[in-house]
Amino acid sequence: MFEETIVALATAQGISAIAVIRLSGIDAIAITQKVFQGKNLLDQPSHTIHFGNLKDGDRVIDEVLVSIFKAPNSFTKENSTEISCHGSPVIVKEIIKVLLKHGARLALPGEFTKRAFLHGRFDLAQAEAVADLIHAETDNARQAALNQMRGGFSKEINALREELIHFASLIELELDFGEEDVEFADRDDLKQLIYKIQKYTRGLIDSFDLGNVIKNGVPTVIAGKPNAGKSTLLNTLLNEEKAIVSDIAGTTRDVIEDEIILGGINFRFIDTAGLRETQDTIEAIGVERTRERMKKASLIIYLFDLTQTTLEDIKAEEEHLLSLNIPYIKVGNKVDRADPTLIERLTAENFIFISASEKIYIHELKEKILSYFHVNAVKTGDVMVTNLRHYQNLLQTHESLDRVLEGLDHGITGDIVAMDIRQALHYLGEITGTITTDDLLDNIFSKFCIGK
Amino acid sequence: MFEETIVALATAQGISAIAVIRLSGIDAIAITQKVFQGKNLLDQPSHTIHFGNLKDGDRVIDEVLVSIFKAPNSFTKENSTEISCHGSPVIVKEIIKVLLKHGARLALPGEFTKRAFLHGRFDLAQAEAVADLIHAETDNARQAALNQMRGGFSKEINALREELIHFASLIELELDFGEEDVEFADRDDLKQLIYKIQKYTRGLIDSFDLGNVIKNGVPTVIAGKPNAGKSTLLNTLLNEEKAIVSDIAGTTRDVIEDEIILGGINFRFIDTAGLRETQDTIEAIGVERTRERMKKASLIIYLFDLTQTTLEDIKAEEEHLLSLNIPYIKVGNKVDRADPTLIERLTAENFIFISASEKIYIHELKEKILSYFHVNAVKTGDVMVTNLRHYQNLLQTHESLDRVLEGLDHGITGDIVAMDIRQALHYLGEITGTITTDDLLDNIFSKFCIGK
Repeated sequence: MFEETIVALATAQGISAIAVIRLSGIDAIAITQKVFQGKNLLDQPSHTIHFGNLKDGDRVIDEVLVSIFKAPNSFTKENSTEISCHGSPVIVKEIIKVLLKHGARLALPGEFTKRAFLHGRFDLAQAEAVADLIHAETDNARQAALNQMRGGFSKEINALREELIHFASLIELELDFGEEDVEFADRDDLKQLIYKIQKYTRGLIDSFDLGNVIKNGVPTVIAGKPNAGKSTLLNTLLNEEKAIVSDIAGTTRDVIEDEIILGGINFRFIDTAGLRETQDTIEAIGVERTRERMKKASLIIYLFDLTQTTLEDIKAEEEHLLSLNIPYIKVGNKVDRADPTLIERLTAENFIFISASEKIYIHELKEKILSYFHVNAVKTGDVMVTNLRHYQNLLQTHESLDRVLEGLDHGITGDIVAMDIRQALHYLGEITGTITTDDLLDNIFSKFCIGK
Repeated sequence: MFEETIVALATAQGISAIAVIRLSGIDAIAITQKVFQGKNLLDQPSHTIHFGNLKDGDRVIDEVLVSIFKAPNSFTKENSTEISCHGSPVIVKEIIKVLLKHGARLALPGEFTKRAFLHGRFDLAQAEAVADLIHAETDNARQAALNQMRGGFSKEINALREELIHFASLIELELDFGEEDVEFADRDDLKQLIYKIQKYTRGLIDSFDLGNVIKNGVPTVIAGKPNAGKSTLLNTLLNEEKAIVSDIAGTTRDVIEDEIILGGINFRFIDTAGLRETQDTIEAIGVERTRERMKKASLIIYLFDLTQTTLEDIKAEEEHLLSLNIPYIKVGNKVDRADPTLIERLTAENFIFISASEKIYIHELKEKILSYFHVNAVKTGDVMVTNLRHYQNLLQTHESLDRVLEGLDHGITGDIVAMDIRQALHYLGEITGTITTDDLLDNIFSKFCIGK
């Protein structure tokens, strides 16, 4: 348990029915007792709740409920209290002030979770999932984060790592014997183990594409010539979904105009200027920017105005689209007013036909959009990598193991092989936090919010 | 206990470490149990906390802590639970959804507090103070609301009302005897009681001026000619105070540029255009608006540029200020560059001299501003009326009792006296909620936030 007792507001800022202030550390209960008028909190069992006055000297700040958690049965595994007060920023400030006066100090971002990690409540990948859980913007993102927080790939990675440590030790033992030609580590068994590890990590690496989409959403560009109906399509998509997300009052956050959750995935639509050849310098810059943004998109919805488009236009645009090497969907808009022969010709070209303004075939377009993402994986609880840091470490693990295999195949000396194995162990260990540095931890937890 | 179990988010909306969802009603614990995987909550004692999974069918939504409160030992005096989950709007929404599916319904604004009132946890004036406590913007406002929530004038008013009921009954009994000239109620005793009641209510009525200031702040206008230094003064006042309010990260709400807490009172500064005679029509409208706003202010800080002002100017402006009948402070700005003889002349005129840009004598100005408000009253725990509804009812009580006294002095018949007493009883009873109507309650609680 850490000497210092930390304190922070744990609930969101703002005016509300209640707010919760959290303390953790060796003196958490004792410090709370100093400002509490009611039962003696030090005598109370863990996981109990006590009503009383929260006081600064003789002055009552608020009537509160104090929840008591005794080490190791708390989130941080330290003594902890949660003070549930009336949800006024003024009250929260006064209570924190008086707690600071009595020996607590303000918690750093993520410090509660960091302590939970350092006390072994969970490993580093699980701790990181706590932040992902809080920031989940869709139910799929929530599920992926929860799966990871509840264990995810941690156990498997640690088990494989243990097996690999065993081989590393044997090989290092061989080195101790110097010139004697002993071989404690069976090279074939080692290869089999590496194949097994690589199979597992490859699966995780491959899951990152979807994991990243689920966690961070899909930057999507709706492109097309001026008046192709881009804004109308965006509004049509937005309006249909808004009704769904806002049915429970007081829970949804402010809607960001251009984000739409389709099939549990957050599509962040990027506004673009219409694309056309132009002599106007300013407009040319706008068009250039649109092309730049298209390059950064993960999906392009390219809108053609069927009443204005010729097959030549389409061919020209498609060449450009192909060159970007990004998934794109060709959408023919204003289908209700289009020439039937054109539609017939385009059907073979893998077009989706809609009318954005008349809301025709919008459902089909959504299905098409979602067909690029295999969302069901998350529902079935499949283990999935959503964290860039884990992804990078997995890639590096994989590469180190490739070098080990190469070394084994070419009869490289044991010391080199051992070094590559150690490197793989290092990268794996950093994922779950078996190996950490202060920098790594600071970097991870400083991105948390205060109070977590 | 009400049949229906209500549910709402009790903490502020937004991303945070934790969020708390609150249920209340006969089935609160049973409904929570239906979505909870862990210990059987129905078997647990009141005021205990239980860790487990919050589930929708087989799907785990989140890992949560459930607090149990058994009737009558909860805020509402009903069975209640508080579900503490990770502070993600997505999780909150999913949990509320699954609770609705299992028989809870969304709480109306203020419905928890309304139930607490209807079950006799506190009277109506106290219930209203709960909302004031949450919305308190200053520590004084918090203290005034807390004093009221913890009893305030309720007990006294109810006791006086009981005494008055006693007389009302006696007088009504006299009426039953019709023509016989009996007098059960001693008229002198009744008068003494009315004097006592009026003395108490007068004190409360008089406290409203300050109570209102403490609860709602002081609309303050800084006026003066263009370039008198109005914006500089506002910034100087703001900057000094900002450092004080923002020393605890994460607790203060977004600062509204023009609000400053001085001595525990919220001064809402109203921007005004500089005042000068002008031929320009648009500017004239601006000046007219400034004059309008000055009329609505509770305090005017009138700034003179000492380097540009003549005694004639001052005389002219003062005449206008006097005509408004609003407290005003005459401030001479740029004192560091002013003519000493002018300063000497103005000293007799009750001027405050400052330099807004050089931050000279700002403290003296603050003292002067605060001298208009006797803030210490709230610190000593004096009972104070902050609620307009209570204030109006007190005034009406007072008037009814005036009529009773008048009736007694002029020997008016008992039935008229009795009617006036009943009216006074009605107004007093509405303050504490001894007498209520559905409309009154709806009107009060609909202004609460959801979850309270």
